[in-house]
Amino acid sequence: MADSWVNSAERIGSDLHLEWEPSGPGGRRAALTRALRDAVRTGRLAPGTRLPPYRSLAADLGVARNTVADAYAELVAEGWLTARQGSGTRVAERTEPPRTAPPRNAVHRTHPPRRPAVRARYDLRQGTPDASAFPRAAWLASYRRALQQAPDEVFGPGDPAGRIELRTALAEYLARARGARTDPGRIVVCSGFAHALRLLFAGRVLRGPLAVEAYGLPFHRELLTTAGVRTVPLPLDEHGARVEELGRERAVLLTPAHQFPTGGPLHAERRAAVVDWARARDGVVLEDDYDGEFRYDRKPVGALQSLDPERVILIGSVSKSLSPAVRLGWMVLPQRYVGDVLAAKGEREAWASVLDQLALADLIDSGSYDRHVRRMRQRYRRRRDRLVAALAEHAPHIEVSGVAAGLHAVLRLPPGSERSAVKAATWQGVALDGLAEYRHPAARDADMAVHDGLVVGYATPSEGAYGAALEALCGALPPDPG
Amino acid sequence: MADSWVNSAERIGSDLHLEWEPSGPGGRRAALTRALRDAVRTGRLAPGTRLPPYRSLAADLGVARNTVADAYAELVAEGWLTARQGSGTRVAERTEPPRTAPPRNAVHRTHPPRRPAVRARYDLRQGTPDASAFPRAAWLASYRRALQQAPDEVFGPGDPAGRIELRTALAEYLARARGARTDPGRIVVCSGFAHALRLLFAGRVLRGPLAVEAYGLPFHRELLTTAGVRTVPLPLDEHGARVEELGRERAVLLTPAHQFPTGGPLHAERRAAVVDWARARDGVVLEDDYDGEFRYDRKPVGALQSLDPERVILIGSVSKSLSPAVRLGWMVLPQRYVGDVLAAKGEREAWASVLDQLALADLIDSGSYDRHVRRMRQRYRRRRDRLVAALAEHAPHIEVSGVAAGLHAVLRLPPGSERSAVKAATWQGVALDGLAEYRHPAARDADMAVHDGLVVGYATPSEGAYGAALEALCGALPPDPG
Repeated sequence: MADSWVNSAERIGSDLHLEWEPSGPGGRRAALTRALRDAVRTGRLAPGTRLPPYRSLAADLGVARNTVADAYAELVAEGWLTARQGSGTRVAERTEPPRTAPPRNAVHRTHPPRRPAVRARYDLRQGTPDASAFPRAAWLASYRRALQQAPDEVFGPGDPAGRIELRTALAEYLARARGARTDPGRIVVCSGFAHALRLLFAGRVLRGPLAVEAYGLPFHRELLTTAGVRTVPLPLDEHGARVEELGRERAVLLTPAHQFPTGGPLHAERRAAVVDWARARDGVVLEDDYDGEFRYDRKPVGALQSLDPERVILIGSVSKSLSPAVRLGWMVLPQRYVGDVLAAKGEREAWASVLDQLALADLIDSGSYDRHVRRMRQRYRRRRDRLVAALAEHAPHIEVSGVAAGLHAVLRLPPGSERSAVKAATWQGVALDGLAEYRHPAARDADMAVHDGLVVGYATPSEGAYGAALEALCGALPPDPG
Repeated sequence: MADSWVNSAERIGSDLHLEWEPSGPGGRRAALTRALRDAVRTGRLAPGTRLPPYRSLAADLGVARNTVADAYAELVAEGWLTARQGSGTRVAERTEPPRTAPPRNAVHRTHPPRRPAVRARYDLRQGTPDASAFPRAAWLASYRRALQQAPDEVFGPGDPAGRIELRTALAEYLARARGARTDPGRIVVCSGFAHALRLLFAGRVLRGPLAVEAYGLPFHRELLTTAGVRTVPLPLDEHGARVEELGRERAVLLTPAHQFPTGGPLHAERRAAVVDWARARDGVVLEDDYDGEFRYDRKPVGALQSLDPERVILIGSVSKSLSPAVRLGWMVLPQRYVGDVLAAKGEREAWASVLDQLALADLIDSGSYDRHVRRMRQRYRRRRDRLVAALAEHAPHIEVSGVAAGLHAVLRLPPGSERSAVKAATWQGVALDGLAEYRHPAARDADMAVHDGLVVGYATPSEGAYGAALEALCGALPPDPG
């Protein structure tokens, strides 16, 4: 079973010479250790094999005895080799895991379902801003300034609420741009909307069931389900969510500025009514302000949160205004939740990159963020106008639902035509989703003002590709039934 | 109840003039909207108050009628005002939340317990690297290169596993520096060790109970408890965790390279034994490689993970090597867990800043990371040597437990003297923890090789303050009882 050490030494020696890089990182000892480890790993040195004494291998390889001794000791410490008084150094018996069969009882789930890789020529799926428009120069300038000006304590343990510089900048920005009533003390920085939902529900700051709009992001519903929170669909009509139908829930998640995805703002009376409901029921409204900056026909409606900062949690992020690659979002919290959210976040965790936090604070304070948002507002507005114009010309029977805002639009389709329209779009090389993807599984037909529709994300394609994408889209729309 | 509009107009007019900044952001309309909103918010305009017609207020203020109309419409949309056919525009009835009493049934928890603000002159608490040593120039250079070279798709939706550039760099680095057996496909980037624990347990990839070392970070235990995972203490002796006493658990969390905080490496036979245990019980070992790079007396023992990548999850981060402000960590996973971890992470979430991921990949690939680690290893080694020398001179009866490694040391104290030593240190202006802080609540005395001790973090003070910190520490140590 065990070779004599002479043969081993020869084999080891020749194997080692193959990889012998005495000038590599760590010098001869490290190279020898690596080579031996590889020989054991790959099975060239079988379990139980006795290794040659130090001096033999040292002579064979032309290295010092101590080099070999150190390499052996290292591999004994790692468990590759065993050294026992009187029996020399051997390859350990159980260094190679059973590779052939999966372990018993192990659950072999495959990767989670991801969006299929886009082989389509045109990506009109909603959700991300124009990736080519990220303000690299302005971001880098802010990042450099932030890094250079940062006091040393920045690199120590973080404040789980987020850097005060960013919370101060956000408080000022949200008051100015969204009419929010806030101060840095009630802002908690997180890594995005999903992180906020997790902190609130998986962190048990709030409990389910949670009322949600009958159309919404499936990703959010799934996250809530995983956290053990039941979601209850709230019917939608042309004035937004029918908040007067709120049942026994004590929390509701809304997109008041621009219903996602159908596109209407929540009616002013309902804004007031849902706050009244929260007061009466000791409830709370979660305001998903996902694209509050992007209204094109008028100044955006201010944040619902301003009606009652003690009853509304305002949640936002830079995922649509800058990029989802900058993992930064925020919650503006009723004072009574601040402590619980920080506890859910963890005492010593900052979660969001502290340097990115400082860079974003600088970007806001320097006015670069506003300039970027203004520039993108113009760009997306033009894209929406082009979409509307293309429809007017090529498919005048197709109506765009909702107000002029955001990074996507919903095209209302004749009843029953959604599925075939999505398929037709695929044939035309266009990737997009039908409205059905966003529908709450428990929603009834009567709960929806819009039934069949295509969700068209007009922000994602590059400027150059957008015209052709629109053309392909129009070619996929169902003909006028009338 | 409602004033006549004439009086209101006068009051509004004078109030507005106080804040009237027609050149402010958004011009006159925005200024008027703000002023009106503030008047309603602060109660100067009481609920139910009827507002003057557009033309009256416009004349009063010297602005266009449309400016007033727009401001009213805005505030109606926000819910501050109500507009009803025939009754004009009024201040809404419920614009001010009840401020006096907290809502019924609301849980008013205070902020979570945080470490007390250090008023001590010298911070010798373990946990963070020298904040003044962050390699700002190298990091900025890597960040700039990464940002400039990044393809546009970087700013689109992220890969929940982390950027391939970083996973590739980590796979190469962990093989080279830690002897890990890995490839980019089994690495998942996260924001640090705690995030990894959350994904594994709160994400239900693994289930409790989890065996942990009898001494460990209370923060991790709390996180696990919150996730509903029971932890079971594993006794420690001079060879590390007594893995042969593993009970019915199917998962164990270990710090094999350098037990935290007592400082010994896990004995080679136990390294092998715990992997055997995992194979026999279909279990898994979580390897917390929190300071694998920082061994001073010899090359660090390689990662336990290399013994069986299908039975060990290797978890690391840059929190100690660079800074906890860079929220980046990683898991090297058995192949069968990759899908579940990604599912727990969420389909469209990157969690960790994508730009920081690219910057770290560049830092590693360019050799700057290795250079920084080497520099810090020298610095911390010198600090540890100075600690040992100071003890030898001033308190030769106090022994340093564990091997020469890491960013902290444990000073063994005579039985029963820990609490008074911590107190004495506070009197000397030194902040540090006693070993008791790290003890599992269910651990028995017999489970511990070290009982009374001080955990001295020697990395945190600046270079200049370290000498004085040591002097103060020595002044706080109990006298030789012999």
